[in-house]
Amino acid sequence: MTSISKRKLGFARERDLARLFWRKGFACIRGPASGAKAKRIIYPDLVAMKNGKIFVIEVKTREKRETIYIERLKIERLIEFSKRAGGQAFLAVKYMDGSGWRFIPIEKLETTPAGNYRLTPETVAREGLTLNDLASIASNTVSLDKFIRI
Amino acid sequence: MTSISKRKLGFARERDLARLFWRKGFACIRGPASGAKAKRIIYPDLVAMKNGKIFVIEVKTREKRETIYIERLKIERLIEFSKRAGGQAFLAVKYMDGSGWRFIPIEKLETTPAGNYRLTPETVAREGLTLNDLASIASNTVSLDKFIRI
Repeated sequence: MTSISKRKLGFARERDLARLFWRKGFACIRGPASGAKAKRIIYPDLVAMKNGKIFVIEVKTREKRETIYIERLKIERLIEFSKRAGGQAFLAVKYMDGSGWRFIPIEKLETTPAGNYRLTPETVAREGLTLNDLASIASNTVSLDKFIRI
Repeated sequence: MTSISKRKLGFARERDLARLFWRKGFACIRGPASGAKAKRIIYPDLVAMKNGKIFVIEVKTREKRETIYIERLKIERLIEFSKRAGGQAFLAVKYMDGSGWRFIPIEKLETTPAGNYRLTPETVAREGLTLNDLASIASNTVSLDKFIRI
């Protein structure tokens, strides 16, 4: 796949996720496509909000179950944005083999020896929250602490 | 001015406002440029967040001090988004004659006989909050109720 069609595919999947959030009663906004001008400010892929709860989200999709590597700067920016907002940062992961979206609190990422971040399929399976979990947290029926035990 | 360069100018001004929010310690995200695909979901121009407070914003700039008309659907969507998020909706207005940004709670808009909305320069001057006001509200040092008395 060319890098342009890969990018388009990425955007289409972000849009799909935004629609799922919308259907669950969230307000959801996608950041502008990153260009030179937009890059001066930090933007996450997606921000989903409900009942005053703010979920700051970086989206990652993979064709098969493999370890996902994320550069340090990206995670640091996600944390910075989320801290400013008073929200919680997640990686939204979808393996395109039929499994659904899973939301991994960034506290659960592992660091690599070079100082970047990595997320294994095992961590996704063990620590990943579902969209319904996020909706429950937003409705205050479940606390996020139930999921994040570090 | 052509409609394309007008649009570009509008985006540039939204970016400027996003930067101002950022400098005041907010997290801020601009919606994607509206195209056919993006339009299926409701997006405000800008969402600014701080300390768990969510400000949902439609941006309007004018070259001179004149009454601004906004179609009903746009305001209804802004309200819907803000309700889902658990936030507060504002119109951000800037007259390009040297005055700064003013934020008008949408509760302050007047309706037109045709069911749309209108915002006069007088209302902007009387009811408009400053960026510092919004920062104070987000830091809980001032309540929004101080500003919204309907």
